Amino acid sequence: MKEKEFISVIKNVLNSDYIGDDCAYLKDLGIVVTHDSLVEDVHFRLDYMSVWQIGFKSVMVNLSDIAASGAEPKYLTVSLSLPPMTDNDFVENFYQGAKAACGNAVEIVGGDITGSDKVFVSICAIGVSKGRKISSRKSAKPGYKIVVSGMHGSSASGLKLLEQGKNQPEKFIKAHLEPRAQLNFGKEIGAKVEQDYAMMDTSDGLMDALSTIANESGVLLEIDFDKIPYDKEIEQFAGWRDMVLFGGEDYGLVAAVPADFDCNGTVIGHVKQGKGVDLAINGEIFHYTKEDVEKKIFEHFKS
Amino acid sequence: MKEKEFISVIKNVLNSDYIGDDCAYLKDLGIVVTHDSLVEDVHFRLDYMSVWQIGFKSVMVNLSDIAASGAEPKYLTVSLSLPPMTDNDFVENFYQGAKAACGNAVEIVGGDITGSDKVFVSICAIGVSKGRKISSRKSAKPGYKIVVSGMHGSSASGLKLLEQGKNQPEKFIKAHLEPRAQLNFGKEIGAKVEQDYAMMDTSDGLMDALSTIANESGVLLEIDFDKIPYDKEIEQFAGWRDMVLFGGEDYGLVAAVPADFDCNGTVIGHVKQGKGVDLAINGEIFHYTKEDVEKKIFEHFKS
Repeated sequence: MKEKEFISVIKNVLNSDYIGDDCAYLKDLGIVVTHDSLVEDVHFRLDYMSVWQIGFKSVMVNLSDIAASGAEPKYLTVSLSLPPMTDNDFVENFYQGAKAACGNAVEIVGGDITGSDKVFVSICAIGVSKGRKISSRKSAKPGYKIVVSGMHGSSASGLKLLEQGKNQPEKFIKAHLEPRAQLNFGKEIGAKVEQDYAMMDTSDGLMDALSTIANESGVLLEIDFDKIPYDKEIEQFAGWRDMVLFGGEDYGLVAAVPADFDCNGTVIGHVKQGKGVDLAINGEIFHYTKEDVEKKIFEHFKS
Repeated sequence: MKEKEFISVIKNVLNSDYIGDDCAYLKDLGIVVTHDSLVEDVHFRLDYMSVWQIGFKSVMVNLSDIAASGAEPKYLTVSLSLPPMTDNDFVENFYQGAKAACGNAVEIVGGDITGSDKVFVSICAIGVSKGRKISSRKSAKPGYKIVVSGMHGSSASGLKLLEQGKNQPEKFIKAHLEPRAQLNFGKEIGAKVEQDYAMMDTSDGLMDALSTIANESGVLLEIDFDKIPYDKEIEQFAGWRDMVLFGGEDYGLVAAVPADFDCNGTVIGHVKQGKGVDLAINGEIFHYTKEDVEKKIFEHFKS
């Protein structure tokens, strides 16, 4: 999948200002909207993931995008495509998982159901922007602090265990199959912040989010690896640092907010003039350009 | 696909008032929202449909749902899943077709792009309800007239020709591959009508829409077959009347509106007390229950 190449083709055809952030912000309607799909054998496998978990995770993936915008998630539509032999239990379990991920604040209001060869889930989520400030990846400014919410690397560790046919430690497997979006962190920032700010979810990895914010905003992010929250047990894995930095699907949030802005989460660095990401590990500084990060993600997780 | 069975499972799990109409009406946000997917080898085949046409039709299918609600279509998100060998031209042609269907009034504002085995298109459309009255399938009342916009049977004829490897008459094939939603008819009714009314698109056939409105509203629809607009050349096909009545994907609109309401479209019948649909053909009356219509659709188009 030449995803980034395709996105630039799409931007060319549409010539739209909307394409770019986790969500499109429709100011005239006071909403943000996002739309993500999960495909069997691309994003999940039925031999290690329950149908309930597919429903749960599909919703969480989309709520995470809304949280990253600073809006309040409110409504979802769900399009489900199912192989011919699917039974009622499958549909029931999927929707039970989806409903569990919605909690009390979010409601599934529509969608459709069609046939297909493989299970295909497509969800559109709507969030409300009223009384909130919506984030933009372009709004990180020198002097801002970088705050992260959520542990990183756990989901990639869980996926590695599943691929090896293992089922322990269970917490990593659960992090992959039943991720929890950082809804409160996103909502809190959106409601309290007064200045422009950047926020993004770490669906494609922490470094992807940091690098994207750095490059879209035209700034340098100085990050201290030791401050990044991760589960210490991850250190048992070969290449664990890369899992923390480049592993996807933890659905954490990274925000660049004014230094004096008071919020939850862990401060992992600061914004400076310059470009890219400077990562300090054990006193040594590693500089990452946009291309370095893309190459690394491709090598480790997409090859 | 046990679509109707699955929908009742979903309604049970969600216990939601929203599921039922072409669109969900989110009153607090002043919008309607709909979400439909098109799957390769289920809804279209790449050997007879161009990529431009897939983009065009996928958008029209969703705009038709918005038109059926009486709202004004405004924004779309598009999720596209593509096989590994897909090239940039495919993405460009798809989006050119999608953009052509949008015209000037509708904008694509987001979505995502992922890998898959087959081409999978999922579109979410948002319409604005401000200054309009939104339809409900439950709102047909005795004394109302039944108005239809758009020709019926052309799309089913086109599909039959394509399946036989034919490419004439081209107008039928085009009706199937590049349907035009009845956007003006839907917008006009939504803007002008003052009383509650029912409106539905004929994506699953004219009789499906009539029968659904009749049964959801708890009324009888008396329909005169001779008044239904269709292309006379369709009479060359065996079973042409069934194509007009039960053939899908013409994306016409059927509305039940007060008898004295002045609107475009063709009056094909009236609403009476009772249940189901009474269809007059050549002076003879045929009564259709909900089950009769479902059986007929299944026999002719889903077996």
